[in-house]
Amino acid sequence: MRRVLPTVEQFVQGIRASDRVLLGRAITLVESTRADHQAMAQEIIARLMELPAPDTFRIGITGSPGVGKSTFIEALGMYLTGRGRRVAVLAIDPSSAVSQGSILGDKTRMEQLSASGMAFIRPSPSGDSLGGVARKTRETILLVEAAGFDTVIIETVGVGQSEYAVHSMTDVFLLLLLPGAGDELQGIKRGIVEMADVLAVNKSDGDRASLAAQARAHYLNATHLLPPKDSGWAPRVLACSAQEGTGIAEVWAALEEYRTTTQTNRYFYENRQKQAAHWFREALELGLAQLFYQHPAVKERYASLEAKVLSGKTSPFAAATELLDIFRK
Amino acid sequence: MRRVLPTVEQFVQGIRASDRVLLGRAITLVESTRADHQAMAQEIIARLMELPAPDTFRIGITGSPGVGKSTFIEALGMYLTGRGRRVAVLAIDPSSAVSQGSILGDKTRMEQLSASGMAFIRPSPSGDSLGGVARKTRETILLVEAAGFDTVIIETVGVGQSEYAVHSMTDVFLLLLLPGAGDELQGIKRGIVEMADVLAVNKSDGDRASLAAQARAHYLNATHLLPPKDSGWAPRVLACSAQEGTGIAEVWAALEEYRTTTQTNRYFYENRQKQAAHWFREALELGLAQLFYQHPAVKERYASLEAKVLSGKTSPFAAATELLDIFRK
Repeated sequence: MRRVLPTVEQFVQGIRASDRVLLGRAITLVESTRADHQAMAQEIIARLMELPAPDTFRIGITGSPGVGKSTFIEALGMYLTGRGRRVAVLAIDPSSAVSQGSILGDKTRMEQLSASGMAFIRPSPSGDSLGGVARKTRETILLVEAAGFDTVIIETVGVGQSEYAVHSMTDVFLLLLLPGAGDELQGIKRGIVEMADVLAVNKSDGDRASLAAQARAHYLNATHLLPPKDSGWAPRVLACSAQEGTGIAEVWAALEEYRTTTQTNRYFYENRQKQAAHWFREALELGLAQLFYQHPAVKERYASLEAKVLSGKTSPFAAATELLDIFRK
Repeated sequence: MRRVLPTVEQFVQGIRASDRVLLGRAITLVESTRADHQAMAQEIIARLMELPAPDTFRIGITGSPGVGKSTFIEALGMYLTGRGRRVAVLAIDPSSAVSQGSILGDKTRMEQLSASGMAFIRPSPSGDSLGGVARKTRETILLVEAAGFDTVIIETVGVGQSEYAVHSMTDVFLLLLLPGAGDELQGIKRGIVEMADVLAVNKSDGDRASLAAQARAHYLNATHLLPPKDSGWAPRVLACSAQEGTGIAEVWAALEEYRTTTQTNRYFYENRQKQAAHWFREALELGLAQLFYQHPAVKERYASLEAKVLSGKTSPFAAATELLDIFRK
């Protein structure tokens, strides 16, 4: 039996009252490919954005597979809910369309946190492109924040370009690292290290403590060599053990200090503006492509022109010009 | 005094007759931002593409600064012109808008080659985006090939994404490396090594010969660990000294062998088709964005909607939807 869809008004009121069921269903609308669901999702978001913007903190987290991201996020999440913060955990995993949502898909990986009334965990939306997946996550951020979650953690698996997507929607970027100084630079793209505001060597416990110290020294050195950031913030390199719960408070302190520093120098707000402008342009590009490729006359001519391009009978640019002329009329 | 622009017919005949002055002026049209120049360039290219496609070989070359790319290209170019090939050297340097065309800008860097009647050297077009610069270079390839240059070398500086742009318009990809095994992996992105079909350790001479041998062993090992390529080709790792002229023939032999292998297994042709499809899509996207942003009603509303997005009064997605609705009408 299909459930009857609540009205926009019911969604808006429910989300404002932090109703987890309605929040979850609103996110499902955001993630839906149906046009009517999309329209309703947009209406809900538009209504919620008319309200005063909540004061929130968006934290991006990445790290190689095996670095213990889930354990770390559970430890940080529990630490924060214990201090009265309401924590939402989202994810961006463009591979989830194939793997059926491996990331966060299994909530048992964060058993304690998912049982907490102060936390809300949502697996990565699926999608056939990173752009599509990222857009859904961005809209979900707005929904969970409207529902009163003041700390939003966005995890990524660190494949392909997904770190850049997460970076483009968060206030601060945390990179988790493995102990051992030698081979990290190969596993982690240099650009990711450059994006990080806080770096934490996880699994700094037992036998691995000295390896972790080495890694920390290595990354301290590496970050010192980076050009200064627009934010005016010098990256911190810390060590922690999510398993043993050590160093979590220090990581949080660094994240908080980042927030205070960048709110004081206004970078925090400028960055959010820049991000909004970026999402705007991206939404325009996506929508424009849809308009174009679904235009009947374009659809009719597309295949034959593409064939001419592929066989080298016309230049890609001439064919594009012809198709754009058709679209314009 | 302004020179009178030749007619399309004059350009077409001139380029077919390998007139270097007309070829150069046609490329200038491709690089121009003026709409009438662009239209004329497209007409010239369209006319040239109606002719039977010439049998050409497009070689992408990259490597870290200091690896000796210019010296290598000069050595390879002289070797090829000496064997009766006609060689065009182009470049993609998205930073050239700022640095005023540092790459190939100074033709004296390839003094011998630029003096040869069998070679044609053109510095990187300038532009404010890699996409724009790449498009101009792609069109320039068609022009130089129509003018009878059968071997097109496209150099890139290896910053940002420019290697991917070069890779997307060439048949084979050559990575130049420095002697010394240790630190290369840090300077060269892993993805670039994966893209390379032929790797050549340059400066393999004098004191550096043993370091070069080390680097070669290192990269032999690294390429063996890579997954097999769609082309069915296993990357070659060679050593050479452009300065002393050693190993150049071997690098060319490897490039030629690549061509024979991939023409036999058809990958060469499939790859060119894939590239044409890619350019087609990109030209569509670029043209579509132009149509949109220059639409009067869109222009009128854009600024105020963007301001609402930046101030957080509306979601980027809602604003985009509104603007797209305006465009559609």
